[in-house]
Amino acid sequence: MLEQFIYIADMIGVISCAISGVLVATRLRMDPVGIIVLAAVTGIGGGTLRDMMMGATPVFWIVDNNYTYVITITAILTVFWLKHIHRSPPYLLMILDAFGLAIFTIVGAQKALALGFSGPVAIAMGCITGVVGGMIRDLLSGQIPFVLQKEIYATASVLGGVLFVLCSYLEFTPILAMSIAISGTLSLRLSAIYWHLSLPVFASDREA
Amino acid sequence: MLEQFIYIADMIGVISCAISGVLVATRLRMDPVGIIVLAAVTGIGGGTLRDMMMGATPVFWIVDNNYTYVITITAILTVFWLKHIHRSPPYLLMILDAFGLAIFTIVGAQKALALGFSGPVAIAMGCITGVVGGMIRDLLSGQIPFVLQKEIYATASVLGGVLFVLCSYLEFTPILAMSIAISGTLSLRLSAIYWHLSLPVFASDREA
Amino acid sequence: MLEQFIYIADMIGVISCAISGVLVATRLRMDPVGIIVLAAVTGIGGGTLRDMMMGATPVFWIVDNNYTYVITITAILTVFWLKHIHRSPPYLLMILDAFGLAIFTIVGAQKALALGFSGPVAIAMGCITGVVGGMIRDLLSGQIPFVLQKEIYATASVLGGVLFVLCSYLEFTPILAMSIAISGTLSLRLSAIYWHLSLPVFASDREA
Repeated sequence: MLEQFIYIADMIGVISCAISGVLVATRLRMDPVGIIVLAAVTGIGGGTLRDMMMGATPVFWIVDNNYTYVITITAILTVFWLKHIHRSPPYLLMILDAFGLAIFTIVGAQKALALGFSGPVAIAMGCITGVVGGMIRDLLSGQIPFVLQKEIYATASVLGGVLFVLCSYLEFTPILAMSIAISGTLSLRLSAIYWHLSLPVFASDREA
Repeated sequence: MLEQFIYIADMIGVISCAISGVLVATRLRMDPVGIIVLAAVTGIGGGTLRDMMMGATPVFWIVDNNYTYVITITAILTVFWLKHIHRSPPYLLMILDAFGLAIFTIVGAQKALALGFSGPVAIAMGCITGVVGGMIRDLLSGQIPFVLQKEIYATASVLGGVLFVLCSYLEFTPILAMSIAISGTLSLRLSAIYWHLSLPVFASDREA
Repeated sequence: MLEQFIYIADMIGVISCAISGVLVATRLRMDPVGIIVLAAVTGIGGGTLRDMMMGATPVFWIVDNNYTYVITITAILTVFWLKHIHRSPPYLLMILDAFGLAIFTIVGAQKALALGFSGPVAIAMGCITGVVGGMIRDLLSGQIPFVLQKEIYATASVLGGVLFVLCSYLEFTPILAMSIAISGTLSLRLSAIYWHLSLPVFASDREA
């Protein structure tokens, strides 16, 4: 039951991120296979780095072909849908990205706790799982990553990680803990997008 | 016999990619050690990520110093050759890159099958081995990677991977399977360069 | 005694690099959590890649929470200090970066030798540990990495690695070997900054 919940959540995250990868790829006028590559990088990049860091190799998608299939099918369907609608809805990229961020954060933190790592490590692993896929997507497309812009982004991921670790220590049922944490990240990130919220910025002029 | 074939093919791929790294590095006016760094990243970056993902650590070049030596010698010879000819032949970078792509794809796919992973994973590992080195080279030099441009690139790698997995299932001898697959990738990629072939592009205008 | 020496040196390297990450992050006007992310990437990025390549997983900072704490505290203190002084001292970024480069090179090379790898591998691991953190910092902030500019940089790291391996073969005490090697890298890199030293550059005009 818990396993299925995590698996389904993870797949929703992968699909959200894969679509966001396709949105960026089509903007860059990539060919079909290039689109699938960018969808895959966005969808499984974060979890791949997490697994390599924790030594949980071979990484998750190597031992479960469903990830490859889901990404490929998502990419193909998205391309046809984009051709059909001509213009994607405004903010779609950011909203999908927010769902990926929220879900991957909790999946990553949960995996770290399940492997016996400490709370701070779980929060870090959640953040890495959540932000790295989109980070590589942005790097590859020649942009400074989302996560490094001033809008609340990594902050939302850390909030979700802290909530999850806290709820786990308080011995909430895992599914409740995950739901609370996903809602936390998602509502903070979506609020930030909607109201253009940002934390105070510490800027300084400095030499190169 | 098979082992030697793979080893020699791999070295040819490493040399091709190392030279391509030097070509980019000299264009960026890097110092000698920087040139060797970029040559190394291009030559062994893809295989390094592949091995880390599959848990085949320590990665291949750590347990076999020949890779480090071959890259260093290749970089030094290439620099002297470039000084001598003043201008490198047109398309040299792209052609070397094509050889690296074709060989690394098959070396990666072969290693994945040999470690007992499935066909789809072998195709993905081949693609990662083939494209990641050049991808990091381009990223480091401040360009959007080759692989994300519209010309057929990752597509050629996937074609090679599919051919290799197919030939392996049909129980061709490994050397025949590898030769067919390398030829497949190489001819598709070289044709794409020569005739400026590209797959249809799915572009869309979208919000940031 | 040796272990403590290495641990303290490593922490000084992490603090130097974390501050350099904060300097870049504040220039990019990032939010507090983004600042910590960039500080962390710069401080532990190189060692993370080193450990993943050598199969020394889970990587070092996952099994020792001190790294996470030190980076977070360093980032917070640096932000307050920057707010207080308004303008950071000239060359601060480059000097901190030089300390990180020198220390991480030797920590990386030492770990590789301790795990039983060969001299050339130790030099490569030292270089990777030394340059990769700053490289990712620069990539993420949309710049061509320091290491690929013409000033002596990777060269200084390789010099340190060679000195350390040499001193180890000559059976110097580890602490003496590390001190010599750190001084070597540091003095070469600081000289390069101060006198704008650079190795001869091998540039060539070439097609794209």
